Amino acid sequence: MELSGAPADVLLQRPWLPVSISGFQLLAKIWFGDSAYHILLTDMTSVWEERMNSDAIQRRSQDLNRRLRAPVKAFFSHLCEVVRPRLSGSGEGADGEAQISLTRKEDGNIGMKLKSELAGLPFYWEFHCTPAPIALVCLQLVRPLLAMSRLLQQQVEQLGVLLVRKDAEIQDYRENGATLSRERLQTDAFEEQTYREDFMAKTLPLVCSEQQQQGALGFGDDLQHLYASVVAHRGTHAQKRKLSEERSAEEEEPDLRPSLGVGSVSGETAHRDREQNRNGQADATGAKMADRAAIQQSLPVTSEQPAPRPSSKTKKKKVIGLFR
Amino acid sequence: MELSGAPADVLLQRPWLPVSISGFQLLAKIWFGDSAYHILLTDMTSVWEERMNSDAIQRRSQDLNRRLRAPVKAFFSHLCEVVRPRLSGSGEGADGEAQISLTRKEDGNIGMKLKSELAGLPFYWEFHCTPAPIALVCLQLVRPLLAMSRLLQQQVEQLGVLLVRKDAEIQDYRENGATLSRERLQTDAFEEQTYREDFMAKTLPLVCSEQQQQGALGFGDDLQHLYASVVAHRGTHAQKRKLSEERSAEEEEPDLRPSLGVGSVSGETAHRDREQNRNGQADATGAKMADRAAIQQSLPVTSEQPAPRPSSKTKKKKVIGLFR
Repeated sequence: MELSGAPADVLLQRPWLPVSISGFQLLAKIWFGDSAYHILLTDMTSVWEERMNSDAIQRRSQDLNRRLRAPVKAFFSHLCEVVRPRLSGSGEGADGEAQISLTRKEDGNIGMKLKSELAGLPFYWEFHCTPAPIALVCLQLVRPLLAMSRLLQQQVEQLGVLLVRKDAEIQDYRENGATLSRERLQTDAFEEQTYREDFMAKTLPLVCSEQQQQGALGFGDDLQHLYASVVAHRGTHAQKRKLSEERSAEEEEPDLRPSLGVGSVSGETAHRDREQNRNGQADATGAKMADRAAIQQSLPVTSEQPAPRPSSKTKKKKVIGLFR
Repeated sequence: MELSGAPADVLLQRPWLPVSISGFQLLAKIWFGDSAYHILLTDMTSVWEERMNSDAIQRRSQDLNRRLRAPVKAFFSHLCEVVRPRLSGSGEGADGEAQISLTRKEDGNIGMKLKSELAGLPFYWEFHCTPAPIALVCLQLVRPLLAMSRLLQQQVEQLGVLLVRKDAEIQDYRENGATLSRERLQTDAFEEQTYREDFMAKTLPLVCSEQQQQGALGFGDDLQHLYASVVAHRGTHAQKRKLSEERSAEEEEPDLRPSLGVGSVSGETAHRDREQNRNGQADATGAKMADRAAIQQSLPVTSEQPAPRPSSKTKKKKVIGLFR
């Protein structure tokens, strides 16, 4: 079940946590299942991922630990225990002995090497992270960030309206001869345009320099909370949709299916994960295939000929939304 | 000069404009140079691009218009005139005769076919858009959207503080026996926590359904303005940095060069554009090569061995920033 497409939504619900390994500052999202994992890493200049299922983990563990003869579940819990804290922003792992290092490969991939101790023997693990499909970057970063911006923008507008109403109340008191007992309590009238210009002039450079100094890649707690709210909301919608899709996929016309939202991407992920079960391993090729699959789903299938202008009904179905 | 890397910043300054072709709702960014162009398209589920230089345009125009014997500049201005309005959100092109259609190819690419009339003869053009490199997606969407979120978040905090100060002033008037001439002017005290919870409960679903109904993909005017401010600020920084990099690239240690910011991406784009001059055409392979190049630049080059933990000084240089 963990490999049946759930990870797409489960991973989406995870926060982006700042991680510092070998001097590299990254944001990480991780999901560890029973005997499978999905890792996302970004430096905001690129995004990498690795998703591994039970078979792939078993194979790699044999390659890296010749003397290890344990079944996956036996050492996977150890792997989680050692790695999870290191990729959850909490610095050192539970196992003080564990060493983890990150290198950027010549081919642009990212490798993370782990050395720890399991039952008195050295235990080695390697994460091979390849560039993530664009569909995943859009799902995990672009669409949530856009939704966050829209929410915050509306909040700014609402608070501006509240301030104007406060000013109206204050003005009425003053016009009726009310005075302040403490002069310092007096405020200036709020003028949105002036405020915004002043804010941009002062805060934009500030945000930029902060961005330079801090390693958290600008994803502070407030934004983390907002991100969580946005993806949580989307998650529930996607879940509902996904179920209904699974029930009625056959009857639906292709171009009437929610085509540009997260549902299709989860579907695509499910496909990828099933693929992993067959192939035993998710590699860069698989990711690119999935990327194409996602893109193909992202626009209704048409022939090489221009698509006939669809009816407003069809069009409406096709309209792109963050949360479809 | 237009092909010497400028487009990366020039394109960044462009707004994302809603475009509706053949019933597909997309956001588009376009740059038309003297005889070169760079187009970005996104449906927020994926991002596609095509960048063409003079040679590539000449070749394709010959393939599509056998009887056309004009030099690039002769018909490129016509191409711009016909296409620019259609990819700038202004619907119909200047040339009422021109027909443009968009199709999604089996391989996941996007094709846009144009038919217009040039000097009494039919003139055909095709845009072949392939998935954009992740580095470009991060540069054009992820980092600006994150900066926008941070700015708006700070604005929300500032306005909250202002509201609290207004309440203090109002309370002082009331405590001194002041009364309102019009009851309806009275406001409730602002409590940030309560407000935020209420806002999320009410506005989050609203934003979601708006997102579903509107085709503008949620990039409204307010966000367009904010995007413009953010990238404009970044642009100037990147320009300065780019110049200083070009001057001092040779002396700098590799891992002391701005490695994770926009500068490296502009540099990468310059490399790609030079590449186009040699190869005459930017194709998907080129894009992927550039993507790799960008990723390689995005983390300091290390051997396969774990990177030695750098000194705090080096580390500071390496810290990731939106605006480096």
